[in-house]
Amino acid sequence: MAHAGEEKAVVVESREWYMAAYAPDGIPTSKHLKLRTVPVSLTADSIPEGHVIIETLLVSIDPYLRSRMTGVDEGLYFPQFNINEVLSATAIARVIRSRDSNYSEGDIVIIFFCPVSEYCVVPSQAISRKIDPNAGVSFPDYLSLIGLPGFAAWVGIDAVGEAKPGSNVFISAAAGAVGMYAGQLAKLKGCRVIGSAGSDEKVKLVKEFGYDDAFNYKKETDFDAALARYFPNGIDLYLDNVGGKMFEAVLNHVNKYATIPVCGMISDYNKVWTNREGVRNLLNMVGKEVKIQGYLVGTYMDRYEDFIKEMVSYKKQGKISSKYKFYQGIEQFLESLESLFTGSCAGKVLIQVK
Amino acid sequence: MAHAGEEKAVVVESREWYMAAYAPDGIPTSKHLKLRTVPVSLTADSIPEGHVIIETLLVSIDPYLRSRMTGVDEGLYFPQFNINEVLSATAIARVIRSRDSNYSEGDIVIIFFCPVSEYCVVPSQAISRKIDPNAGVSFPDYLSLIGLPGFAAWVGIDAVGEAKPGSNVFISAAAGAVGMYAGQLAKLKGCRVIGSAGSDEKVKLVKEFGYDDAFNYKKETDFDAALARYFPNGIDLYLDNVGGKMFEAVLNHVNKYATIPVCGMISDYNKVWTNREGVRNLLNMVGKEVKIQGYLVGTYMDRYEDFIKEMVSYKKQGKISSKYKFYQGIEQFLESLESLFTGSCAGKVLIQVK
Repeated sequence: MAHAGEEKAVVVESREWYMAAYAPDGIPTSKHLKLRTVPVSLTADSIPEGHVIIETLLVSIDPYLRSRMTGVDEGLYFPQFNINEVLSATAIARVIRSRDSNYSEGDIVIIFFCPVSEYCVVPSQAISRKIDPNAGVSFPDYLSLIGLPGFAAWVGIDAVGEAKPGSNVFISAAAGAVGMYAGQLAKLKGCRVIGSAGSDEKVKLVKEFGYDDAFNYKKETDFDAALARYFPNGIDLYLDNVGGKMFEAVLNHVNKYATIPVCGMISDYNKVWTNREGVRNLLNMVGKEVKIQGYLVGTYMDRYEDFIKEMVSYKKQGKISSKYKFYQGIEQFLESLESLFTGSCAGKVLIQVK
Repeated sequence: MAHAGEEKAVVVESREWYMAAYAPDGIPTSKHLKLRTVPVSLTADSIPEGHVIIETLLVSIDPYLRSRMTGVDEGLYFPQFNINEVLSATAIARVIRSRDSNYSEGDIVIIFFCPVSEYCVVPSQAISRKIDPNAGVSFPDYLSLIGLPGFAAWVGIDAVGEAKPGSNVFISAAAGAVGMYAGQLAKLKGCRVIGSAGSDEKVKLVKEFGYDDAFNYKKETDFDAALARYFPNGIDLYLDNVGGKMFEAVLNHVNKYATIPVCGMISDYNKVWTNREGVRNLLNMVGKEVKIQGYLVGTYMDRYEDFIKEMVSYKKQGKISSKYKFYQGIEQFLESLESLFTGSCAGKVLIQVK
């Protein structure tokens, strides 16, 4: 028998994306990722202690997600999704029921591994932090400017790349989420910054971000010639986001003690490794004493607060900006993910769920 | 008219190697490198002030020499030899006439860029240092244990690689001049060390140097399988001396925060870069946060004295040993150089000129 104060049972239909089949090669399709509808009870009594029911507001779509869908554990970022597992991504969500005294209905939270769904139940430990909707930082900025892409850019330029005033900086995928911040940060540090991007429209955007110049790598297909022209004094720092042929071309133009921070290689995510473009001129690293450093932002969490302060300060001074591409509705997950690899969007890709 | 004290003119025939034609591809042959005989006056009056006449005793044959013979300046170590220029290499020589008060007849000196010849005149600034024949360090050890290969090994393991007790260390070209010291140094630091080499005889030698184990990469051609077997706990430090396929295989077995110091890539020296084996799995650097660091020993000269002290101390305690391959006579330069790339010799290759 229902006791006093018991809620009336409410169950909603919630859509969620799950892994139907692995995609070792190529961009995942509806064969690999599928949407299904499940019932989710929205009553607090229906969930265990220490859990919350959330509704998802905004989902961050990042290239690393692709690496969890190959079925081959290359130890890249995070383990493979299991078959039938609901996909997870970083998201902003609203708590709608809580059985944890630290969280109340209406709280807005960030969850790093949030089920890609409309409604769901998560253990409260999955919540990264509560955010203050009135702090002057927009929800998209939480997932971008001071989220994963912003931090990846900051670590690459600052902590790993040690950009200095006057450094000649090259950034590939410059109109992407990491690239747009990386270029602006390098400019703020007094560097000369050139970017590459995949369309004239993106090149225009990159220049609006304050890059000294940029080129369309789909038109200037002789990367070696392009870099010779844009870097008459060589490259001191290359923030690599693409790998492959561009990486190789850069190694022909590096200066002494150049640094190449690598946080991802978007040209490689959709290929089995043996089919990837090989880099043939690593020997160039020797004479120039180049450092190539792979990094994950998790290793730099001790500098996270410095990063937040710096970015929020730049933002308040109007010194840094963001470009967003919003997909509407959870049903657009597949299209939004695909857009990262076809290069159809500029800036940070997000899904507006609510 | 000759004044008092003037020497009787003595002119000797001296053989020297010169660059006849560049060899962009393949191992240089007698088409590219030629021996000629020139007259050299051995009287002090015949040379300018600040110069010395030397006779060469021992020439160091190092793989980097190859990179000066391609005709293509890749900025690797040192500029290309000019056509008709006498080749130069690090050598130990005896001063036989001097017009510099800092040097006397009979002094034994090291010259980094010494003409590959029997007799020649050099500016005294070309002399790196005088050596004491009674200091307890043999001439070969000056060019190896405490010369370029020893220092390259020490910098790779210690300064760049930061080997720690218990580190899992892999060294390719382990029976080569750098490899033999690198493995011994890593063992002295308490690492577990595995080497690869190109013959069963070399594998045996490598084990005699104290490596925990070694394999013949010409027999175990599935490098991936070999590394999986020899490194069940992964690789923390790979001192790369070869590049290419072995480099790629290593990137499939690296541990978190692994370091790959690169001081040369012997598999690449005889190939135009576009014909080299590409490394296709650089993306593995990201998840494991691997550092690949190109280095030249010149950058670490501030630690040169520490290195010498350490190596001489190990030598005196019998804790480090060297294997030498001596070619007899300057005429063997071409064969000695070739041996570095065919893998026909183990240890440090030298020419005994006198």
